[in-house]
Amino acid sequence: MQCEFLTASSSLSVAVRDWISSPIAMAPHRPLLGAALGASALAAAPLFVAPSLPKASRSDTTEALQQSRPAPTTAAAGTAGVMVAGAAVASVGHARSRRRINKKLAAPRMAKVSMAAAKVGCVGIVGSSGAVGKEMLACLENRNFPTDKVRLFARRAAGSTVKSEKFGDIVVEEFSLEAAQQCEICLLAVSGDFSLEWSPKIKGGPLNTQVVDNSSAWRYDENTPLVVPEINGEGKCNAGIVSNPNCTTAVGAMALYPIHKKYKLKKVIMSTYQAASGAGAEGMQELEDGLATWVKEGAVPKPEFFAHQLPFNVIPQIDKFQENGYTKEEMKVTWELKKIFGLSDDVKVSCTAVRVPTLRAHSESIVIETEEPINPDDVRELLKNSPGVKVVDDPASLSYPMPLNATGQEDVEVGRIRQSVVFGDHGLEFFVSGDQLLRGAALNAVIIAEMAVKVRA
Amino acid sequence: MQCEFLTASSSLSVAVRDWISSPIAMAPHRPLLGAALGASALAAAPLFVAPSLPKASRSDTTEALQQSRPAPTTAAAGTAGVMVAGAAVASVGHARSRRRINKKLAAPRMAKVSMAAAKVGCVGIVGSSGAVGKEMLACLENRNFPTDKVRLFARRAAGSTVKSEKFGDIVVEEFSLEAAQQCEICLLAVSGDFSLEWSPKIKGGPLNTQVVDNSSAWRYDENTPLVVPEINGEGKCNAGIVSNPNCTTAVGAMALYPIHKKYKLKKVIMSTYQAASGAGAEGMQELEDGLATWVKEGAVPKPEFFAHQLPFNVIPQIDKFQENGYTKEEMKVTWELKKIFGLSDDVKVSCTAVRVPTLRAHSESIVIETEEPINPDDVRELLKNSPGVKVVDDPASLSYPMPLNATGQEDVEVGRIRQSVVFGDHGLEFFVSGDQLLRGAALNAVIIAEMAVKVRA
Repeated sequence: MQCEFLTASSSLSVAVRDWISSPIAMAPHRPLLGAALGASALAAAPLFVAPSLPKASRSDTTEALQQSRPAPTTAAAGTAGVMVAGAAVASVGHARSRRRINKKLAAPRMAKVSMAAAKVGCVGIVGSSGAVGKEMLACLENRNFPTDKVRLFARRAAGSTVKSEKFGDIVVEEFSLEAAQQCEICLLAVSGDFSLEWSPKIKGGPLNTQVVDNSSAWRYDENTPLVVPEINGEGKCNAGIVSNPNCTTAVGAMALYPIHKKYKLKKVIMSTYQAASGAGAEGMQELEDGLATWVKEGAVPKPEFFAHQLPFNVIPQIDKFQENGYTKEEMKVTWELKKIFGLSDDVKVSCTAVRVPTLRAHSESIVIETEEPINPDDVRELLKNSPGVKVVDDPASLSYPMPLNATGQEDVEVGRIRQSVVFGDHGLEFFVSGDQLLRGAALNAVIIAEMAVKVRA
Repeated sequence: MQCEFLTASSSLSVAVRDWISSPIAMAPHRPLLGAALGASALAAAPLFVAPSLPKASRSDTTEALQQSRPAPTTAAAGTAGVMVAGAAVASVGHARSRRRINKKLAAPRMAKVSMAAAKVGCVGIVGSSGAVGKEMLACLENRNFPTDKVRLFARRAAGSTVKSEKFGDIVVEEFSLEAAQQCEICLLAVSGDFSLEWSPKIKGGPLNTQVVDNSSAWRYDENTPLVVPEINGEGKCNAGIVSNPNCTTAVGAMALYPIHKKYKLKKVIMSTYQAASGAGAEGMQELEDGLATWVKEGAVPKPEFFAHQLPFNVIPQIDKFQENGYTKEEMKVTWELKKIFGLSDDVKVSCTAVRVPTLRAHSESIVIETEEPINPDDVRELLKNSPGVKVVDDPASLSYPMPLNATGQEDVEVGRIRQSVVFGDHGLEFFVSGDQLLRGAALNAVIIAEMAVKVRA
């Protein structure tokens, strides 16, 4: 019931993104356990996962299946900017909403980073066999990350070989401090406990190694920057440990920050629609299995992973309850937006976090009050020119953000933008959908690393 | 994409409520098309639907299946009050949340109504073969409505016989003005257009017939009362036409009104999680079929009924877009809460209405600001003593409102009650789940009719 992936061995099918969002718009059943995608029309997959792993487990079959994953769009760092990778696979099947996602130039700040000629010798991914770890490697490839070498660390997958078009065959290693310190940058997709113990030891050393941590271990530490690179990356990516925000925070932040800069937030009220993937592979598996059993045997089995049945239900609890009656997932949004945006205590942020029976990508209904007068047209223009955001907001064509469309996209979709009938000309309401494995985790970490490379140059 | 059931012939399986919420907590697959419930352990069904209907259609099989519907709890109008009917079937299968729903005494105002010795000769249901029409008949039975005779009017089902334990065999009739005016009360579960044309003609006549209308036709007419009986029923149920609110409004109103009376609402900000059933039988069928095809063939077919794919997705649009960027479904909440509560223009209400892939019962995340200081403990006590509401709010046992539990219940569940970190001691946040076919439609209409009977006495 947590948004983070807490163990290095946790695993989530990245293939899910692809079959949900493939051009034929169909979600083949139970890709984690079958070979439904074996005859996929989407060929030319980069074989970055070894065909067999030592131990046949749920995560192993996931990895094996990834061989049929469609090729990510390799982004060339050119003079004009960086192509947004992976966008080409993101379309849904319904005729009215089916469309090719326009590849667009990334916003200037991101472009500048990758345009830099700087380079590092090695990047390490600790927890490389987990859902986020795998996405991190995909992001390094897709974004043409300026390094020649990637080292992968994972406990159970150690010894297996991951094939990478850009970085060659990579033999997965057991984690060791010595090996980690042979990388200039280590991306951590591990538990908070692991990070608490090892991050301070990894950072520094002979190569002045930097840690980009995806857990919540360091997020609220006053000496550790908490970074969404497009928002507050400048001047913070030289730290020994840089922390990634919670996925729900990161998805909402992409739309909220440009608005805050121009209109100054006073209040943020958020209700979320969070996918099973936010709880990791087990959450997705339970949703898939529950629906399959319902179809085949006429019944949804008792839940084992989630506290309550997720198929045909919504669960208004994610992560543990706090003393104030909010869950930790909800308070993360409050705490992290304040830290990332540098909000004063006068700015109030609240969230209701709800799990819904979807597979991947989180959505958020957001109502804001601002200090300055605000209006939908100006905000649409503002967001169209903001990094990491795509405005999908055309009532006439029934276009608005939806998790199926946001899946596999680097950009967070923003739409349903309207003047708030509660806060009048100082208020706005809107809806966002974003791939929380990308913006809320792997992509965010990799862009931080890109900025770190630039700073190190 | 509308909350109302717009045609007299629309149909929705009331059995759905039962198999979702049966003690074994399992949702048999595709009950609309199969005989999955044939061997149900829940026996003693009231055979109030004829075993065969003239034309084999989707709605016909639905009706046929209802023969295996579990017996509703027949509520006896006693001296102490009315038992809340149907509650016994509402429990879900997960061990932690599985529990018998405590039958509780209905609140004083509702009890008073049924305690009255008053009676009418005949109640008519126009649109009796639709989802809401069927629920209306079930409510009349379950609540031991003070009439000896019920007449059913439906176009396609005319000529078939509906069996009712309380009201005997009822032959469904074609609608006629003359027949309708032979009933003291007509419950309309028909389209807005039908109601616009016929309600003014039905009302009055030799028996001073009253119309209780479930469509939106008369809701905003200044001469027509818009009634949630526990809230504003007193003095309004003698009108010729009494209007039922939209389901989303009605579900939220049950929790909001007691709070408003005591603390005075200033702002209401709502985000919804609305089930496929809100769009009628076709919506549920498309969700079920989509999931079944996904399991069997590995793909979700293109949507035909919803604008976008609902399985594994959420759709942030219900009903048509208005000029202000809100949808009509969202504005109904604003308009109707104002009218039902008698709110001044200073009180601001907004809603974001979102369809989620669940079958039945709507949920709402609600944030309020109040004029008076407010706190969660007092509100829990207040709501425990409010009619039509059940407080489900125990973080320690992971108890909170969920649509699976609310399905088939007359009461709206309220929980996640917490002091708002945005509005401080003048604000509250909470979550509600309610069966929109009951509270938002059939039950609400039948309680209005009960009050009307009392007034006529």
